[in-house]
Amino acid sequence: MPDPVIAAVGASPIGRTDLPGRDLFSVALGEAFDGLPDPADIVEAVYVGNQSESYEHQIMHGTLLAEWAGLRHVPAERVEGCAAAGALALRHAVKDVRNGEHDAVLACGVEKMTAGGTGGATDALSAAFDRAIEQRSGVTAPSQYALLAQRYLHEADATERDLAEIAVKNHDNATRNPRAQFPKAVDVETVLESDPVAPPLKLFDCAPVGDGAAAVLVTTPELAGEFDRPTVTVAGTGASANNIAVAERNMTEIAGAEVAAETAYEEAGVDAAAVDVAEVHDAFTVCEALLSEAVGFAPEGTGYQSYLPPEERADGWTDVELSTSGGLKARGHPIGATGLLQAIEAYEQLTGAAGDRAVEGADTAFLLNEGGVADAVTVAHVLTTEVSP
Amino acid sequence: MPDPVIAAVGASPIGRTDLPGRDLFSVALGEAFDGLPDPADIVEAVYVGNQSESYEHQIMHGTLLAEWAGLRHVPAERVEGCAAAGALALRHAVKDVRNGEHDAVLACGVEKMTAGGTGGATDALSAAFDRAIEQRSGVTAPSQYALLAQRYLHEADATERDLAEIAVKNHDNATRNPRAQFPKAVDVETVLESDPVAPPLKLFDCAPVGDGAAAVLVTTPELAGEFDRPTVTVAGTGASANNIAVAERNMTEIAGAEVAAETAYEEAGVDAAAVDVAEVHDAFTVCEALLSEAVGFAPEGTGYQSYLPPEERADGWTDVELSTSGGLKARGHPIGATGLLQAIEAYEQLTGAAGDRAVEGADTAFLLNEGGVADAVTVAHVLTTEVSP
Repeated sequence: MPDPVIAAVGASPIGRTDLPGRDLFSVALGEAFDGLPDPADIVEAVYVGNQSESYEHQIMHGTLLAEWAGLRHVPAERVEGCAAAGALALRHAVKDVRNGEHDAVLACGVEKMTAGGTGGATDALSAAFDRAIEQRSGVTAPSQYALLAQRYLHEADATERDLAEIAVKNHDNATRNPRAQFPKAVDVETVLESDPVAPPLKLFDCAPVGDGAAAVLVTTPELAGEFDRPTVTVAGTGASANNIAVAERNMTEIAGAEVAAETAYEEAGVDAAAVDVAEVHDAFTVCEALLSEAVGFAPEGTGYQSYLPPEERADGWTDVELSTSGGLKARGHPIGATGLLQAIEAYEQLTGAAGDRAVEGADTAFLLNEGGVADAVTVAHVLTTEVSP
Repeated sequence: MPDPVIAAVGASPIGRTDLPGRDLFSVALGEAFDGLPDPADIVEAVYVGNQSESYEHQIMHGTLLAEWAGLRHVPAERVEGCAAAGALALRHAVKDVRNGEHDAVLACGVEKMTAGGTGGATDALSAAFDRAIEQRSGVTAPSQYALLAQRYLHEADATERDLAEIAVKNHDNATRNPRAQFPKAVDVETVLESDPVAPPLKLFDCAPVGDGAAAVLVTTPELAGEFDRPTVTVAGTGASANNIAVAERNMTEIAGAEVAAETAYEEAGVDAAAVDVAEVHDAFTVCEALLSEAVGFAPEGTGYQSYLPPEERADGWTDVELSTSGGLKARGHPIGATGLLQAIEAYEQLTGAAGDRAVEGADTAFLLNEGGVADAVTVAHVLTTEVSP
């Protein structure tokens, strides 16, 4: 069975929107299927990444979005691993197609974070922390990641300015991405002087809250051949869960990401050095540093150099370009959709659709989507322009 | 690749408990793995069925329960299709093993319905209704199913007493099931005179609220051969989503269940007549009637006769025995665990472990787990004592 391909992609605008989640999905689906057959004529199963029922008091997003796509009587379900939900949906689509379960599967993600709901985004996201160990202390996502950042700055030869430079780079990339929530350049002083959120993390170290939806059609290469679209091969997928509570892990060793990445590389028959472009879940600037090390781009303690041109990075760094989309930081982070937005950036980079943010000659992309605090669940994918036999 | 087998099962007590969800899971896991190797030595992936984060303000049940099982760095995720979440977890385990993705996968489900949480069970379950069309009118699960029951009694030659007899049968079955939440016989007058909930449904037409967890180990037949346990083959699986809103469907035609069942039968190479025992999601008594028709056990308009001995049912009815566990009605319905509790009943019926509720000579079991109101999502499985080649 040849590797599956991504045959079409689409996304809604990202940010504070007037549309409910289902309608954001319709926008994403409409872009993906523009010029293609009707979804009902080809899609055989649907997976939806969605983080929280609390925003819109809605579960059953599998059924809801399948219906909104005009599908009846296909398997459809929601998958959830907090912010890794989108990549989990993609992973199921990939597995179903490569195993011959289906010829065409729709992987989608949606989050309506600004809807408020029960307790707003801070409350909804805190449900990803261990209820018994972490939630009762009132920690939030930024305060959890701040622990990792403090430790990273203690262990590595890095400064708050280095983390700020990651934000500067990602905002700069976003200026060239029409999908970005914040297509706006910032300078390093702006980041360093932005409001403290949880030291050492400041406002501009943190990905924003936003609504958004994304849709990715995964098919057999044969079926994709019937559409007038470029395709990208999904050559490898890996996933790993680690302890949910930060206190039970080494905060700067994102061990699950190592496993997920290694699995995906192995399936794809490549190593980290082969990767030209990568999106590595920069929910906070420190994530890009930590994950660059975990997935094999950077030697230990040097991941923070992701903002430097390849020739200026420490020995052992690969030439990969990180967060060309603007990343979670500036492209945006509508939780359940994020893993699929990462896939869309890879698709656009590898099919010549990335405009003036294109990385020249890019033929291999790597994606890392994580849920909970860093390592709680991680999902990796390798995409290539090569067509498998 | 031979069909996967269920190699071990376990469940927590069902009902109002003092334990949090994760500890209910530990009880279930402990039963399943008693005498087996440590989960960390064999389990390669984990799927968790869980309906609502609102009860315990906890998402990421994949990671949480994998950690609680002592597993590290395996793929683990939550799947959700309201009350069909448990069968969705089982379905993923079955697909992963039959496709060679893994040799051993843990399918589990948990719900801590009595925890209260944001708005209690009624509020949590209402999130399964269409937010735009249904929720704003204040409908609840019983009031939605009452619409189906009213229509069914109008169309079929059935009475409220017939529905009550289904409850009587299931309560009687539960008296022989040590796992049952309500192992207590009731007479038909008790059911008919119980408090009205949403006419024509009365208290005893409705499955109870309860906490519970279940764990089912799915493996290759080869790996299962290393354990000193009987096994059951999962010969077929099917799933289908339909419109989420009741108003957009024919209320008495559970069309998605027809598709899911047909898929599972076809994969298993059997027809409805081959089924000896079945659990068909009697969340409300009318469900057993409607689903008996949809999955091919009963001719249209006669499903309500499930409580009669086979020889007294209408022509065209099969000999299947329904809800031998006591069903959702009396065995209990801890939402995310229910699909796996159904599988446990099938396992016990087919391996001679059903004690004095055993259906003599049973070699084929059928399971139908549904989420939302009846047909919103349905998942079917066929289990047999036959070992596939």
